[in-house]
Amino acid sequence: MSDTVKYILPESEIPKNWYNITADLPKAPPPVLNPGTGEPLGPDDLAPLFPMDLILQEVSSERYIDIPEPVREIYKQWRPSPLYRARRLEKALDTPAKIYYKYEGVSPTGSHKPNTAVAQAFYNKEAGVKKISTETGAGQWGSSLAFAGSIFGLEIQVYMVKVSFEQKPYRKAMMESFGATCIASPSDTTKFGKAYLAKNPDSTGSLGIAISEAVEVAATNDDVKYSLGSVLNHVLMHQTIVGSEALKQMEMAGDYPDVIVGCTGGGSNFAGLMFPFLGEKLRDGSNLRVVAVEPAACPSLTKGKYAYDFGDTGNMTPLTKMHTLGSTFVPSGFHAGGLRYHGMAPLISHLKELDLLEAYAFHQNACFEAGVTFGREEGIIPAPEANHAVKGAIEEALRCKRDGKSETILFNLCGHGHFDMQAYTEYFSGNLEDRNYDEQELAMALSGLPSVGN
Amino acid sequence: MSDTVKYILPESEIPKNWYNITADLPKAPPPVLNPGTGEPLGPDDLAPLFPMDLILQEVSSERYIDIPEPVREIYKQWRPSPLYRARRLEKALDTPAKIYYKYEGVSPTGSHKPNTAVAQAFYNKEAGVKKISTETGAGQWGSSLAFAGSIFGLEIQVYMVKVSFEQKPYRKAMMESFGATCIASPSDTTKFGKAYLAKNPDSTGSLGIAISEAVEVAATNDDVKYSLGSVLNHVLMHQTIVGSEALKQMEMAGDYPDVIVGCTGGGSNFAGLMFPFLGEKLRDGSNLRVVAVEPAACPSLTKGKYAYDFGDTGNMTPLTKMHTLGSTFVPSGFHAGGLRYHGMAPLISHLKELDLLEAYAFHQNACFEAGVTFGREEGIIPAPEANHAVKGAIEEALRCKRDGKSETILFNLCGHGHFDMQAYTEYFSGNLEDRNYDEQELAMALSGLPSVGN
Repeated sequence: MSDTVKYILPESEIPKNWYNITADLPKAPPPVLNPGTGEPLGPDDLAPLFPMDLILQEVSSERYIDIPEPVREIYKQWRPSPLYRARRLEKALDTPAKIYYKYEGVSPTGSHKPNTAVAQAFYNKEAGVKKISTETGAGQWGSSLAFAGSIFGLEIQVYMVKVSFEQKPYRKAMMESFGATCIASPSDTTKFGKAYLAKNPDSTGSLGIAISEAVEVAATNDDVKYSLGSVLNHVLMHQTIVGSEALKQMEMAGDYPDVIVGCTGGGSNFAGLMFPFLGEKLRDGSNLRVVAVEPAACPSLTKGKYAYDFGDTGNMTPLTKMHTLGSTFVPSGFHAGGLRYHGMAPLISHLKELDLLEAYAFHQNACFEAGVTFGREEGIIPAPEANHAVKGAIEEALRCKRDGKSETILFNLCGHGHFDMQAYTEYFSGNLEDRNYDEQELAMALSGLPSVGN
Repeated sequence: MSDTVKYILPESEIPKNWYNITADLPKAPPPVLNPGTGEPLGPDDLAPLFPMDLILQEVSSERYIDIPEPVREIYKQWRPSPLYRARRLEKALDTPAKIYYKYEGVSPTGSHKPNTAVAQAFYNKEAGVKKISTETGAGQWGSSLAFAGSIFGLEIQVYMVKVSFEQKPYRKAMMESFGATCIASPSDTTKFGKAYLAKNPDSTGSLGIAISEAVEVAATNDDVKYSLGSVLNHVLMHQTIVGSEALKQMEMAGDYPDVIVGCTGGGSNFAGLMFPFLGEKLRDGSNLRVVAVEPAACPSLTKGKYAYDFGDTGNMTPLTKMHTLGSTFVPSGFHAGGLRYHGMAPLISHLKELDLLEAYAFHQNACFEAGVTFGREEGIIPAPEANHAVKGAIEEALRCKRDGKSETILFNLCGHGHFDMQAYTEYFSGNLEDRNYDEQELAMALSGLPSVGN
């Protein structure tokens, strides 16, 4: 048994700004387009959905953006989050690699999501917004925005993908505990939802459908704004607090990562950890490798097309260039609900095109196996999403073992699995299926990509 | 919105010893008796069940007992735990009182239980034990010992009260994730369980029954020891790490509690927080009040009899003098599974007899209401057990408001509610019943108290 090695920053070291990787990119990412005109969007075009402070962050090219003091105050409830060295896991794998992980499960809702939820709630509150609509898949985002809403006194309305709404009543209960409203999507509370249900009465929903409903509510009500838990530039930027802390903690450890691993759904936890490190590479040069791990059943980075696409099924959003499986793509069943989005964050997609990151896809049983190994050694049961990052980190550690290299691996353990024990039960009983994405479904979804921009 | 005020100790300040309140008591607690002879037990009598190091702690009168370095190493994974000032809750209650809470939900299993689980697993490992049997109600203890077992490479077998086993499959999944075995009790794996099932085939179990099964396994197998998650002196002592940290954190805050509040089932989280403070009162004098809060459906401190009783239904344990509802008492249904034990820790009971603590009982709807108020202000959803402490703290704060007193209140938020969201769902839907204990059931259970010692 090895020692527990935990690196904790003092509260005074909570970063005072977010890092905007756009400032350091060798090439600017493609613009967001108006789907009607094909013209790049201006800030005003987004004003019905977001408060102006967030829109300006979305398009900013400033390297650092100040974190408002009231946001840092709320962060203090659980931040700085710990960085651990996984000594027992290293020993169990018998690897010469050093494995570190940043643990975001210490937040009130158990994942990294509150990092941006608190920031978004703050800017909405400042702008005089009374109510925010949003969507959620597995419920991590919805419960995080509910938490932030309860702190700032904002009304929160969450459209939750129906299949998750039915399978995960405890996430809904958590949202309600924080005073939010949670509605199964598709629903009859929106025009889009009603129309969709008329055509697909048995629909179990998808994130793309839920986004359409939440966007519609914000777009058609003056006093309601919309909020997204991943994908957008400003969301990824809010998450860089994770990596900025980790930079200081790796310095405490007297070490620096050779490779950073994260799981990718929309891309925000991965970006949050690695952007500040990648920024150093872009500015100063280093051999840092950056590895994204995604589910084989929803492989946007490894099998998607880099193209302009809608963010939602109802095609109400602007067009962004991203690795996409097509906005109508519905992934086959698997348990990492946070990794079921059809697209990848435009910034992550752009980095992939610039050959600044690698991506791999794994099946869920292999990821759960990795997560259980991790849990038994390190004492924390990861969320199914985070199991993908664990799997990626273990693969890197085993490569180091084969090659006799003592590289330093850093990964983001973006959340705990307390609300996902049903998935572990199924894994232990041998009932988890390793489904691939459906090739025909993918081809069909990709054939529906918009012509504008592509 | 007020600031977040969190007091974090550096890792080096994790206490180096546990505090043994026995050293400071004005009167020694009554001895543990052999139920056959009525004679006080010696250490050797307990050797079939526990390793000698733990037995010696159980009977020790040393004021401080060193925490072994390997135990402190594991503690470092989540300790020191934070102390918060509940500024937003104070504001919402409009009270002049200052409310602080120590938060033990940061542990890997989400409660204070790993504080003793790690210690017990360590001493068992040192003694060459390969396997530990135990019981669990709601599963917090079982999953904590499973966690500790996975760290030290011990086999853990948990008897889980059948009704909880069926209602809380996720706690079972957590135990299995850590590699433990979880068996619904009563079971056919023990002589007692078989006999009980023969008479009561539809039994949904009780903690007293599960203890009998776990004790039988340890008593009848040379290579198996038994472990208990509360009640015993050494268990309460291991939890004093909570209060010893809180002493230092209150000093950081420049404050000292006028009243300490905790929820009581077996008594360990309450004791853990308040013993170090009460020890100061016993040694140096102070006006500290100590308040225990228990469920009205299982009111051992407020309605039980202070008498010698068995710790289990099968009457396999020694006799301890405690506030008891009778070892056959089965509480009516309510959600704080950790507060369903028929007895109270002998040390807590003794303090009650010495007029060193007050006890109050509340119904569950009032406790859930308090917990939801707390959660919406402070951002943490408490476990149903912890809601009792929240309720008690809010009552004290409202008394201060009525009396215009700015007292300092400290309570133990001993765990989060992630595994108890079903209870919140029922609370929100208005389906929680406020059951009292059954007077007839209590009278019958008390009529069965052993004659030995009483």
